[in-house]
Amino acid sequence: MVSKFIVIEGLEGAGKTNAHNVVVATLKELGITDLVFTREPGGTPLAERLRELTLNNKGIGDEIVTDKAEVLMFYAARVQLVETVIKPALERGAWVIGDRHDLSTQAYQGGGRCIDQQLLMALRNTVLGDFYPDLTIYLDVTPEVGLKRARARGELDRIEQESFDFFNRTRARYLELAATDSRIRTIDATQSLEDVSQAVRHAVLEWAKELA
Amino acid sequence: MVSKFIVIEGLEGAGKTNAHNVVVATLKELGITDLVFTREPGGTPLAERLRELTLNNKGIGDEIVTDKAEVLMFYAARVQLVETVIKPALERGAWVIGDRHDLSTQAYQGGGRCIDQQLLMALRNTVLGDFYPDLTIYLDVTPEVGLKRARARGELDRIEQESFDFFNRTRARYLELAATDSRIRTIDATQSLEDVSQAVRHAVLEWAKELA
Repeated sequence: MVSKFIVIEGLEGAGKTNAHNVVVATLKELGITDLVFTREPGGTPLAERLRELTLNNKGIGDEIVTDKAEVLMFYAARVQLVETVIKPALERGAWVIGDRHDLSTQAYQGGGRCIDQQLLMALRNTVLGDFYPDLTIYLDVTPEVGLKRARARGELDRIEQESFDFFNRTRARYLELAATDSRIRTIDATQSLEDVSQAVRHAVLEWAKELA
Repeated sequence: MVSKFIVIEGLEGAGKTNAHNVVVATLKELGITDLVFTREPGGTPLAERLRELTLNNKGIGDEIVTDKAEVLMFYAARVQLVETVIKPALERGAWVIGDRHDLSTQAYQGGGRCIDQQLLMALRNTVLGDFYPDLTIYLDVTPEVGLKRARARGELDRIEQESFDFFNRTRARYLELAATDSRIRTIDATQSLEDVSQAVRHAVLEWAKELA
């Protein structure tokens, strides 16, 4: 099979780490073991510096990062990762498993922060062109469930401290985009861990069957 | 007079610092003393961190910053500066004198790095809307003259180490854009310091006369 880019998406506490492990195990079942892992924002030294600036205000005191600056920095980090890590990995035949990608920006900045969707789409198309993940596993949870899990884990970053309204808008945009793009598979992530794992494995296997 | 945003532009070694001093002195003659100074990229803690990343590779080792990531970071820095420093200063009645602004990106990234001009203009319009400097003083020098002066000053940053071809393309784009925008005044900066100073003072006074 030609190498593919699989992305795992969802709100904080949706269970992305578990889903990641299930995806890796399912690909192994299929004989696919040459894997590269990415997380966004991040994944190169430059992108990690941008992550620290946007998510943790590192080195900028209490400066308020404007919405537009934030989204431009996310795209700078993303294009750096795509051009220098993801595309080269795919070209040499590895599969890439991403912890978040562009759908997060569409959902969090577009939905959550109410940044104009046309602006975001224009930015996406300008910067990334026709580059899209081959499969996105979207883990759907309500903010109530997700944030409860995330808070149990400890410290929250700047985005994780947003209001419930913010996360409700983010989730609504996730669902809206997932409903119109067949490359995105929505998983009910409020189920038990075991049921979510089964559903993720099933989604990957069904998708792989269609490819073959 | 309503507060204005004046920008000084030109290649390395064009004499921006001298022109800055002349502009300040000329505004003083006109009774304008409430001034705010900016430099780009930079001018806020976030924008300065982005400057260090783009111009000096600070904290990212020898990672090659892709052209698109660079331009997105410049726009992130610019929108942060415009929204949190320049617009508030103009609104409270101060004049703003900028060491570089968007024209630098159009010239260096568009001309020098050959990034598609339509992409840059789309990014500019998306991010900055109808915000433009009221007056731009473009100091025109050949790369031969400018870089000789800049090198005499000491260490060169990443962009200053580019090839002559890069700077020739940058200058050509500066001249092209200056020719089609009446808000940009071109000064022959290969003249003697005294003649350049006179020309800058004259340009500011003529422009102010038209405003009155």
